Amino acid sequence: MRRALAEAGAVGLAGLVVTPGPDLGYLCGYTPPAATERLTALVLTPGAAPTLVVPTLERGDAERTPAGLRFVDWTDGVDPYGVLAPLLTRPDGRYGVSDETWALHLLGLQRVLPHSTYAGLSDVLPMLRAVKDDAEVYRLAAAGAAADAAFERILTARFGGRREREVAADLADLLREYGHEQVDFTIVGSGPNGANPHHEAGDRVIEPGDTVVLDFGGLRSGYGSDTTRTVHVGEPTAEVRRVYEVVRDAQQAAYEAVAPGVECQRIDAVARAVIADAGFGEYFIHRTGHGIGVTTHEPPYLVAGERQRLVPGMCFSIEPGIYLPGRFGVRIEDIVTVTDSAGRRLNNTSHELQLVE
Amino acid sequence: MRRALAEAGAVGLAGLVVTPGPDLGYLCGYTPPAATERLTALVLTPGAAPTLVVPTLERGDAERTPAGLRFVDWTDGVDPYGVLAPLLTRPDGRYGVSDETWALHLLGLQRVLPHSTYAGLSDVLPMLRAVKDDAEVYRLAAAGAAADAAFERILTARFGGRREREVAADLADLLREYGHEQVDFTIVGSGPNGANPHHEAGDRVIEPGDTVVLDFGGLRSGYGSDTTRTVHVGEPTAEVRRVYEVVRDAQQAAYEAVAPGVECQRIDAVARAVIADAGFGEYFIHRTGHGIGVTTHEPPYLVAGERQRLVPGMCFSIEPGIYLPGRFGVRIEDIVTVTDSAGRRLNNTSHELQLVE
Repeated sequence: MRRALAEAGAVGLAGLVVTPGPDLGYLCGYTPPAATERLTALVLTPGAAPTLVVPTLERGDAERTPAGLRFVDWTDGVDPYGVLAPLLTRPDGRYGVSDETWALHLLGLQRVLPHSTYAGLSDVLPMLRAVKDDAEVYRLAAAGAAADAAFERILTARFGGRREREVAADLADLLREYGHEQVDFTIVGSGPNGANPHHEAGDRVIEPGDTVVLDFGGLRSGYGSDTTRTVHVGEPTAEVRRVYEVVRDAQQAAYEAVAPGVECQRIDAVARAVIADAGFGEYFIHRTGHGIGVTTHEPPYLVAGERQRLVPGMCFSIEPGIYLPGRFGVRIEDIVTVTDSAGRRLNNTSHELQLVE
Repeated sequence: MRRALAEAGAVGLAGLVVTPGPDLGYLCGYTPPAATERLTALVLTPGAAPTLVVPTLERGDAERTPAGLRFVDWTDGVDPYGVLAPLLTRPDGRYGVSDETWALHLLGLQRVLPHSTYAGLSDVLPMLRAVKDDAEVYRLAAAGAAADAAFERILTARFGGRREREVAADLADLLREYGHEQVDFTIVGSGPNGANPHHEAGDRVIEPGDTVVLDFGGLRSGYGSDTTRTVHVGEPTAEVRRVYEVVRDAQQAAYEAVAPGVECQRIDAVARAVIADAGFGEYFIHRTGHGIGVTTHEPPYLVAGERQRLVPGMCFSIEPGIYLPGRFGVRIEDIVTVTDSAGRRLNNTSHELQLVE
């Protein structure tokens, strides 16, 4: 909370307003079961103790957080924004607001403090959670190891003749078996479905000759996993092998470009150049990667235009892909952390094209 | 969508902007797996086809919704708010925004359309989803019946000597067994924990002589359940029986007050009067109820100051309680729907104090 307030001051913010979501847990350790229409908000302003505005009903639970907060509660029937307003001591100040704060709450705040201005935390302090300390990198590595273990196990499963949905259910079970408390996605994109990068998993029956994109992850001990491997049912064609090698080379080149001081967009450009040079540029239709931490998608983003420089401790995905509409897709994704000199992978299963049954 | 737009026009809105969450599913049937930093928004304005702004990656999935939408997609690197802005054809208009829209997205909209104003949907169209049609009441009744079945089964379980958390896990399993696809809460508040209305379930071992508040629910076929019963381990004291009877009388009186045309706050006042007259007024520390539908908490709220009148088809909880700090709590909750003349309960397990082992 001290660091967040210092960083906020450095970019001209009068304070931070953080409602339930990953930022709240990250900053003060309080993780109510859900964001709701009842306002809960952590207020950080210079010179004041961190203060949690909380419904009276939930004060007891909130007081169990170890963060040394001050509490201000409000009861049903009271205007909670009127309770929050006096804590924002510069009525014409600019305040950072957590991305996921409900519009309902932001509009309530704008109503009672119309002369203040507001900015989304990821816009104004995008790197607040981006640099992980050793304990966080360890947790991300453990989550990565669990995802790798799940992948190794799924390789021994039957693919041909089963529905995507069944393989996805196996992956979810495996992630839980290896310690995930939350499974966020288990994409199984077989054949033409693999050409849609955000296809989840459907009723399509996987057939011999299919490439299958497997992209899965969730939270383990509060930190995210996210890895993709593309496998093939039976012997691949020369074209599949060719596309696969291009994606593999692009992923490797981007990984080797990671070093402190390099701009995020450079990593994207490196991956994109390999794919474009091979003639597939128009089929790589998404950014190269995203940060990961207490959420599975967060800054820094590896995308054209992002000039943020890499810093040791940052952790993000590198996940180039080629998507041939109506035919098949290939994607390879590892989480990578920035060391003092280079990158280090937190996913370590083979990049060879794995053949499955 | 037509009705929503008509209601929006009637209160002076130039249109609606709805991002992933219950309103989006309710209005157009599209339910992406999560709200994220990538903007997805349904735009409803008079005279234009309903339009879904969607990341290019997700367009394929979105196109599978049956609602007859027009699609506008945007690609990573493009400003999605710049894509959304031209759809809001009155740049000085007032737009309704779904409550759960991320602050990040609302701020993006306010940036590109600074002369428009915005209002939270539950503030400006609080009753948009409040009046259920017959098919919706049926689904809520089926969810209620499932919760009732779960309660009947938990009565046969052992309470004394087990942790709250174990009973809660049983309740979650039972809700799923009876068709819930999502369990939202399984409160087990034993002894003094029952005096905290939002206590979830912890490591406390339930003892003979405890009152235990059980408040549980989730979504079944997309519609919510939410019921509370208070049980007792072994023979209760006269005081427990007395408090229980007061809560039971308050719940019954509030239920009998339900009829079309009655103000929401009246139902709250009726329950509160019974409890105050019995000398426990200061120990009833929350509103009497909340609407329920595709979410488990939504308008109408049965709370002092809410002058909205009841309309046939509205569905809400009636859940008075008495909480004696450090000692025990009692709450009884049923979902009730408004018929043409009165109320009808969608939870129907006994209001007798049930004794468990």
